[in-house]
Amino acid sequence: MGVTRVLREARRFAAGRAGAGIVGVSGGADSVALLRALRSADVTLVVAHVNHRLRGAESDGDEAFVRELCAGLGLECRVLSADVAALAAGDNLESTARRVRYEFFARVAGAVGAGWVATAHTADDQAETVLHRLIRGTGIQGLRGIAAERPNDAFPGVKDGGRPLVRPLLAVTRADVVTYLNELGQPFRTDSSNADPKFTRNRVRHELLPLLRTFNPEIVGALAHLAEHANEAHDIVIAAAADLLSRAERPPAAGTLILDAATLRSASPGLARAALRLVWEREGWPVSDMTFAAWERAVSVAGGSASACDFPGGVRMRGAGKVVQLTRRA
Amino acid sequence: MGVTRVLREARRFAAGRAGAGIVGVSGGADSVALLRALRSADVTLVVAHVNHRLRGAESDGDEAFVRELCAGLGLECRVLSADVAALAAGDNLESTARRVRYEFFARVAGAVGAGWVATAHTADDQAETVLHRLIRGTGIQGLRGIAAERPNDAFPGVKDGGRPLVRPLLAVTRADVVTYLNELGQPFRTDSSNADPKFTRNRVRHELLPLLRTFNPEIVGALAHLAEHANEAHDIVIAAAADLLSRAERPPAAGTLILDAATLRSASPGLARAALRLVWEREGWPVSDMTFAAWERAVSVAGGSASACDFPGGVRMRGAGKVVQLTRRA
Repeated sequence: MGVTRVLREARRFAAGRAGAGIVGVSGGADSVALLRALRSADVTLVVAHVNHRLRGAESDGDEAFVRELCAGLGLECRVLSADVAALAAGDNLESTARRVRYEFFARVAGAVGAGWVATAHTADDQAETVLHRLIRGTGIQGLRGIAAERPNDAFPGVKDGGRPLVRPLLAVTRADVVTYLNELGQPFRTDSSNADPKFTRNRVRHELLPLLRTFNPEIVGALAHLAEHANEAHDIVIAAAADLLSRAERPPAAGTLILDAATLRSASPGLARAALRLVWEREGWPVSDMTFAAWERAVSVAGGSASACDFPGGVRMRGAGKVVQLTRRA
Repeated sequence: MGVTRVLREARRFAAGRAGAGIVGVSGGADSVALLRALRSADVTLVVAHVNHRLRGAESDGDEAFVRELCAGLGLECRVLSADVAALAAGDNLESTARRVRYEFFARVAGAVGAGWVATAHTADDQAETVLHRLIRGTGIQGLRGIAAERPNDAFPGVKDGGRPLVRPLLAVTRADVVTYLNELGQPFRTDSSNADPKFTRNRVRHELLPLLRTFNPEIVGALAHLAEHANEAHDIVIAAAADLLSRAERPPAAGTLILDAATLRSASPGLARAALRLVWEREGWPVSDMTFAAWERAVSVAGGSASACDFPGGVRMRGAGKVVQLTRRA
């Protein structure tokens, strides 16, 4: 069953996608399975591997493993060796590592003329992402989890980021992946930091998911469905919010955005908030610093129950008679 | 802090609500706190208690406790004693007990001319409900959790169900409630079945929530915010779906509902599904038997990629040229 599922997803992916692509391969089970499955579906590939130099000899062993695997399969392998700990310089290590990886993947894609970049996220990753966000606190947008396909434009440092990121194994569980590799007799590397409980992600995997499985053995599938559902709902909300914004927005005056107050008030508070969020995103204002409480204050200014409010990054919102004004301090 | 929060929510509720209401009181901490807090906010109340006769002498002790509490506060107390186990007759005990309670509350409200029925659900109940649904598998509509206010019309046996169900303590944690009662020196009853791990709800409370608190001490608040957010998103989706349906629906012919295929196909699959769900609900077809996979099939018929499909309860959907037909076998 696991073998069938991995191969079926790889073939479905191959059927819908012409031309060469990049596969990010860490050497772990998921990415090795993705590589083998896409290869068996006759997809033209270049492998990209990042040695993050976070685990000394183990990291170098991963690199050697991936190089050898590619040589055996007759595939080109491009490697970036980057001192991620130094690059992070106190910032979040995981997010720095992710940025470095995706930038490298996009650069390799540009260099070899590949049309897409595949990463090996599975349904288990999807479930863990949804849970991780749920724990930190999220709205519908966060529950969407990992997209099956999205533009690689979240990384402004990369000029040719237009090549989409794709996740062909998003409907496949980790158990399926391991069954498939065992069937092939294909070895893979195990990242020792995946057991380190100092990373929340690992505690989600090794403590929370096992407890949830005692409630519902199909919890991974249930969370993956929820992510799909949240994604669809989010698209509908965004469309409604864009429509509201287009009806509410007046021409800006001297750097000040102007929204018609009555139009904003005609919408529900949730829709008004979604429209304001679109403004924040379009203007490049610090959306991630906006808490639930901050959005509530923004909606109360839009709704006329507060007259003015300051937000993170020097954004100011002010009710002025029939309009609501938005400015950002230089 | 806890005391302040309980009293603040009770006063806020009292300020927005004229006339007498019913409070459902089990004798547990939450409902005793609600009763005391509404009483201290000078709200006119009649207490309703249901003895479910599920825990023998303990149930009778709860009833005696509530009667005595009401006598001490000078409040009328109406009690229903119902053999819930016999009424359930093999059906789900918890949902039968809930139906019996809400029907009784609505009957008492009708009898005494009360305008609303308050139950003592807290932020902890909200978090547990969201988690419970998440575990079972849910979409956005399930994540809405417990509504702060909703019509008591989910119980078709009750004629005067128009009186709303209200939850004044939905923003208050269980810890706040206990602090408040301790401050008053007000005793309360403890339901021994709340510790029974055979009820999923209790395992959510005693196993899952404590684990989640080790990730985020504010998990209850995070889940309550998510429920609010899901509620807002759901309202926006429903409005968009109702708009799509009004544009797609043609006059029915001989018991067959007719939808314009091109209009349905112009919408995203998620929006088409939401519109079809509205049809199912309006027609009283078995919505709860529709799985994720069933909705996907329905959307594929609507989208023209499948020609016909049968659904639970004898519902049949068929693409016929420019229209999609929906019928239910008698």
